[in-house]
Formats: sequence, C-alpha cells, structure tokens
Amino acid sequence: MTTGGPPRDHGDPGDAPTVPPPLTEPVNTARPSAAEEARTIAASTNTGTLASLTADGDPWASFVTYGLLDGAPVLCVSNLAEHGRNLAGDPRASIAIVAPATESDPLANARVTLAGYVERPEGDEHAAARDAHLSAVAAARYYIDYSDFSLWVLRVQRVRWVGGYGRMDSTSGAAYSDAEPDPVAPHAARAVAHLNADHAESLAAMARALGGYPDTTAATCTGADRYGLDLRLTTERGLAYTRIGYPTPINVIDELRSAAVELTRRARMR
Amino acid sequence: MTTGGPPRDHGDPGDAPTVPPPLTEPVNTARPSAAEEARTIAASTNTGTLASLTADGDPWASFVTYGLLDGAPVLCVSNLAEHGRNLAGDPRASIAIVAPATESDPLANARVTLAGYVERPEGDEHAAARDAHLSAVAAARYYIDYSDFSLWVLRVQRVRWVGGYGRMDSTSGAAYSDAEPDPVAPHAARAVAHLNADHAESLAAMARALGGYPDTTAATCTGADRYGLDLRLTTERGLAYTRIGYPTPINVIDELRSAAVELTRRARMR
Repeated sequence: MTTGGPPRDHGDPGDAPTVPPPLTEPVNTARPSAAEEARTIAASTNTGTLASLTADGDPWASFVTYGLLDGAPVLCVSNLAEHGRNLAGDPRASIAIVAPATESDPLANARVTLAGYVERPEGDEHAAARDAHLSAVAAARYYIDYSDFSLWVLRVQRVRWVGGYGRMDSTSGAAYSDAEPDPVAPHAARAVAHLNADHAESLAAMARALGGYPDTTAATCTGADRYGLDLRLTTERGLAYTRIGYPTPINVIDELRSAAVELTRRARMR
Repeated sequence: MTTGGPPRDHGDPGDAPTVPPPLTEPVNTARPSAAEEARTIAASTNTGTLASLTADGDPWASFVTYGLLDGAPVLCVSNLAEHGRNLAGDPRASIAIVAPATESDPLANARVTLAGYVERPEGDEHAAARDAHLSAVAAARYYIDYSDFSLWVLRVQRVRWVGGYGRMDSTSGAAYSDAEPDPVAPHAARAVAHLNADHAESLAAMARALGGYPDTTAATCTGADRYGLDLRLTTERGLAYTRIGYPTPINVIDELRSAAVELTRRARMR
C-alpha cells in the first residue's frame, strides 16, 4: 500500500487540459502499491506480449498465453516457433500485459511490464507450472505435451507499472513476488455501478469532506479496491480526481458496502 | 494472394483432434497472402506491444499506440519513458499487433510481428507521420507536441504472421509495404451472418462441390475477404475446414452478394 499523489513522468503540460489541485488535505489517499497493481493486472487476463532476443540480439515481440505461478508468468511455447528458439538461445525476456480495457482511450488503461529471465521449471515446479498454465489456458491441453513445446517460467526481476495517464511507478521483482492481487477490484464493477446510481450525493459528500475538494458539485466512482475508492469530480474549478481511502482495508467485495457506509458517515460528520 | 493449404509448424499432433482431409481437389483456394494478412491486422487496431532494447541489451516489452504510414507503424512516445529512451539508444525494434478477438481461444486469433528499426521522420514525412498518428489515436492531440514526445517510424524489414492454429507464414518488409489491407474482411461480419442465417444450404453445396468435402452435412462461414470464403464444415468424418475462392476477387463489400450467388450457381451446376 502507498499514500500520496501519483508520480508524474512529464513536465509542464503546456496547453493540455489541467486539473485543479485540492483545496484541503485529502484525509486518506491509501491505494494499492505498484507491486499490488502489477499483480492485479497480471491476474486479470491470460494473454500478453513477450519480448525476447533473436540470435542477432534483435528485440522480438510476440503474442503469448500464460498462467501464473506465485505471480511468475508460465509460458508454453513451441521450440519451432521463433520466440521458443529465442528463449532457448538467450533467457532474457520481458512480458507486457494489458488489463481488460475499461476506458476508450487506450493509454488510459492499466498495463505492466515484467522483466527478467526465463527458466525451464523442473521436478515439483514443473508439475506446478504445468497446472498453472493449464488452469489459465484451457486449450493448452491439446498441445502442452507435444514434444516440441516447453514450459518456461519468467523470473521477474524488475516491474514497470502504468495505471493510466500520470499514474506509474517501478518496483522490484521481490516486491512483486511478495505482493498479492487485489481481492476486491476485479469484482467491484457492480458495486461501483450501484454507488453511482443510488449514492451519488454520498460520493460528492466524501469528495467535499474527505477528498480535498470542498467545491465538488458531483462525483462519480471510477473504481474500488481493497484500500478505497477512486472518484472523478466535477468541481467549480473543473474536472478533478481524488482518492477516498477506507478507514481500514477490506478483504472481500462483501465488505465494500459497510466501508462505503462508514465513509459516508464520516463525510457527513465533518 | 496465395493458393494451397496452410503451412504447419508442428509435427505429429499425437492424440490431439485431427481433421479429415478433402476427398476431392478444392477448386479454388485463393486467399490473402501473408503480407496482405499482416497489413489487414495492422490496420484493424491502434494498439500493440513494442519490443525494444535497454541499455544492457535486454528485451523490453511495452504497450504502445500507433498510426500507419503506408503500413509502417508510427509511434509517439515520451523520451522520458523507458521505451522512448530505448529507441533513442538502439533503433532495433519490433511490434506485435493482435487483431480484435473473434475466437474465445486466444491462440485462435490472428496476430503479426513487424520487425525492423525505427527512425525519426523528418520534413514532409514528419508531417505525414504526425497526421497518421493523430488520425489513429485521437487522444494524442493532448501530448503529441510536448517537447518530451517524439515520433518514430518503424521501418519494417521482416514480418511474421500467425492467422491462428496452423495458419502462419513469414514475409519480407518489401512485400508487406507493397501489399494492401483487405478491403472486404473488416466489413464482412453482417454479410457472413446473413450467409449463415439464410443460405446455409448454399454454403454446404459449395463445400461439397467446390471445397473438396462431398461428405459435408452442414457448413458455417467463419469469414470473408476479397478472395473468398472460409468455411467450417460438419462432415461424415468429423469437423473440417475449407476455402471457397470467388471466380474473381472483389474490391468492396457490396460485391460479396453477387460473388456468393455465382459460387452457389457453380456449386449446383456440378
């Protein structure tokens, strides 16, 4: 978990749209760490793009399927395919994974690069890796035991997470391995829709009292995770974004309702 | 355009599902070439994954948006981002592009890798590349003129196309540049649905008389392009696939109806 504003990679945005700053200190900006975000993205799908090295050391991008073994991508590729030959020749590799799109602007969506090197799993790890791949990629049962196919586990050493515009961070392979995917975010769509449909005034009250934007006129929840809510605000100064952390993190989607009730109570108390 | 069966990269499929061979010679198996397929996939979306090289020569996979300038991907990336620094340090690059999914099995979908090196466009080409990127990625208007963003054109030298299971081929950058995207396939969904809903018996007749499977009991059209129809068949020997080329290629979707009528006439004549 981290707190504080999102890091930005770019300088002066020139004449691009600007976002008004908060007028008061947000009460609790707790949100998933980069390692947690990366684990959540990796767990959200079963396809990505591998970067491997050709015999000439050229970078080769290729579509792959994967399963996860404690967060490490498990690939199953043919030794006859270019990426299979590449991995056998040089184990350095990375994989880019894009979370299922929630925004129409592609760069607003979350993605991650996991970089390191591949190894062929052996013994108990081979069995676990095979199970991990098969449980994520059902069709692999038709080819996983072909003699020309091999399993590869990506040992993640370095992680680059991009959550969308202006939300990005790097982290280590160790932090990635130690983190866990968010248990709430993948199941939050219905609860978020309910908050927006039936509790819009509560969300605006949270933004005014807890989110640093007392001039909020309307608020929309754009996502929920174990640590809190992301809100998009209409303020008297224009479009803004804030974060409303729960008093304590939650572990399952069923706890979101009581957390939102408590946030509403605190917002109206202030 | 090419003819003949699809190349296969794998050997004996062991106990995987097998497909019965045709009993007669298919009449016309014309289909798009690998270069044409690659151009069609590249034109089907505006996102892909770049493989670039870090300062250590490690392969780095990263999500990118692109436009197309005569088929060459035009990227717009920040020099502050890892992939921007990588391209500035070593121009070798490739991009993997996945066509919008039509099959639930991810490896059944079409994708392509375009490999070569990047250059910063200059003069007239810079203006054309800027227009190409903006016309494909509308949100780029907010950052394309930031001082830290650069345009890069990928000079494609080598292409690897994978159309799905068992359909794959390599081609040159020159063939890719000279080809054009299929003018029919991206617009064929409604016509294909109509063929399946209202002309299933005609499709089965085509498969029996023209497609090499006289034991066809039912046929479903799975796609149409400028050269012909892809059919999935139920035969007395199991599930099969065939290709029904039109007598002459078509150039617009409006010509598909008369081409299908002519195929039906020929199928019933035999």
